[in-house]
Amino acid sequence: MYIIGIDVGGMSIKGGLSDENGNILCYSTVKTRVYSPTQTISTDIKTVIDDLLNAGGVALADIAGIGIGHPGVIDSANGVVKYSNNIAAENVHIASELKEFLGADIPIFINNDANCAVLGEMFFGAAKGFKDVILITVGTGIGSGIVIDGKLFEGRESGGAEAGHTVIVAGGKPCNCGRNGCYEVYASATALINQTKHAMNGDPNSLMHRVAREESEVNGKTAFIAARLGDTSAINVVNNYLNYLSIGLVNLANVFRPEVIIIGGGISHEGTVLTDKLNADMSWQTFGNEYNPRVNVVTAELKNDAGILGAVALVLNKR
Amino acid sequence: MYIIGIDVGGMSIKGGLSDENGNILCYSTVKTRVYSPTQTISTDIKTVIDDLLNAGGVALADIAGIGIGHPGVIDSANGVVKYSNNIAAENVHIASELKEFLGADIPIFINNDANCAVLGEMFFGAAKGFKDVILITVGTGIGSGIVIDGKLFEGRESGGAEAGHTVIVAGGKPCNCGRNGCYEVYASATALINQTKHAMNGDPNSLMHRVAREESEVNGKTAFIAARLGDTSAINVVNNYLNYLSIGLVNLANVFRPEVIIIGGGISHEGTVLTDKLNADMSWQTFGNEYNPRVNVVTAELKNDAGILGAVALVLNKR
Repeated sequence: MYIIGIDVGGMSIKGGLSDENGNILCYSTVKTRVYSPTQTISTDIKTVIDDLLNAGGVALADIAGIGIGHPGVIDSANGVVKYSNNIAAENVHIASELKEFLGADIPIFINNDANCAVLGEMFFGAAKGFKDVILITVGTGIGSGIVIDGKLFEGRESGGAEAGHTVIVAGGKPCNCGRNGCYEVYASATALINQTKHAMNGDPNSLMHRVAREESEVNGKTAFIAARLGDTSAINVVNNYLNYLSIGLVNLANVFRPEVIIIGGGISHEGTVLTDKLNADMSWQTFGNEYNPRVNVVTAELKNDAGILGAVALVLNKR
Repeated sequence: MYIIGIDVGGMSIKGGLSDENGNILCYSTVKTRVYSPTQTISTDIKTVIDDLLNAGGVALADIAGIGIGHPGVIDSANGVVKYSNNIAAENVHIASELKEFLGADIPIFINNDANCAVLGEMFFGAAKGFKDVILITVGTGIGSGIVIDGKLFEGRESGGAEAGHTVIVAGGKPCNCGRNGCYEVYASATALINQTKHAMNGDPNSLMHRVAREESEVNGKTAFIAARLGDTSAINVVNNYLNYLSIGLVNLANVFRPEVIIIGGGISHEGTVLTDKLNADMSWQTFGNEYNPRVNVVTAELKNDAGILGAVALVLNKR
């Protein structure tokens, strides 16, 4: 049996035909379009699926299920995208539309990016063999995927698991969600870039200026690179940022006490600079730490295929 | 069949013999002693159980299970109190000790106060009929009990569900747990009293001074009473305090999206002053609130027997 994984993003819809062990046999990609109410994204997902079946020489009857990772607020039980800002989607019944287009009652599962990502790492990546896992995607915002005892936890009616929108700075900076001081306002890649720019404005001699020129921009790596070169302002940016990142992770540890917390997103490439600090905090800041089981922080292992493999894992987790 | 519920506190060990509907047939209480390593609390719990069986005219064979609510860090799977500051207990194997003393392999369940409290409210109180419930006990600190899909959620190896120790003010006031800015440092009854005293120091003419004299102390009611009398400083204390309380509840809503969040502890007597503000925040501050199911905030219903009924519910939830 095969599984199809679809990764819907703001730029493209990527699909992969996989076996049950996460070996991707072939790929297909189409550009994400602007969809009208009558012309939904399901049409293009159907195109990707047809491509994959042709390329793989596989019949729809050989597909155990189709997993779809999609940004936004998802009603996973009914396969509906309730709302997605990037795709400009509202109340799109993707699962039922796709079943109609495919002319088959094949199992179709939809969930959001971070939820797919944590399952991908559990089946094929950094959390293989674990059952209590949390993944944080550090990007434009902070997404979170939570697995309890081997099953994805989404909150009631998939309305939870939004750790990026827990306040860690009461009365702090405004968040897009309407609250002030959310975790993602202080610990996302966007936040890190803002913190880096702020420090650069305050220190014209910082190496961060040279690093940014070489990279043609200030990005999430700027402060980390300059810090490794010994730049004091950059070291301060990194330490301050990691403190915020750590606060949200220890909060999650005190509530869920998972075996492992995985850091995903571009920042995960910083490796031990990141995990050494975060693991040190886990060892003494968690509640009742000498009496409670340890929480280990690691970086995500899946790279380019993470989106597709997460969608594949979504199917595997439901079986 | 009958169930015995035991509520262990710093002052007394209270027991009740209950039917399966939470009707308590008789009570027994002994004072909590200072226990030596060889003389553990299990001895006194045994005394309470014997009392209850005698008073109720019931044999041990008629008892479906014994539930014990105990402060501190509990290993509920093995019936061990790993650590309790109030009772000065460390690594006490209450379940196995009690089974030995009773000479019977009767089901015995131990859990901490807040975990028992949420089950008590779910079986007999404010959350009857609900399956996704969170309870916050507002007292010296903040305890939390979390029920997901009808089952108590304690985190891996009962090491989680400590919402009182999630940071909501990064770099804020120190907490006993070793972190800074924990929820309980800003939203416990202790915090409210500190905030009240601070405001009284800043306003010698505030009605809070008169209210405190009449109550012989500054307590968790002082600011609420003076606020109802129109005192501006008191109104500010109440609003500020409720903002902190609300932040932690919305954080929990965004992660768990329960059907209902219950406020327990003395502050719950403030009723709608409390719940109106908290429900208003739930209606617009939760993530994707127009697309996600509503979270309702209510006050606890169980009063004097809450501890015993929580322990009784612990047995019922395990069956």
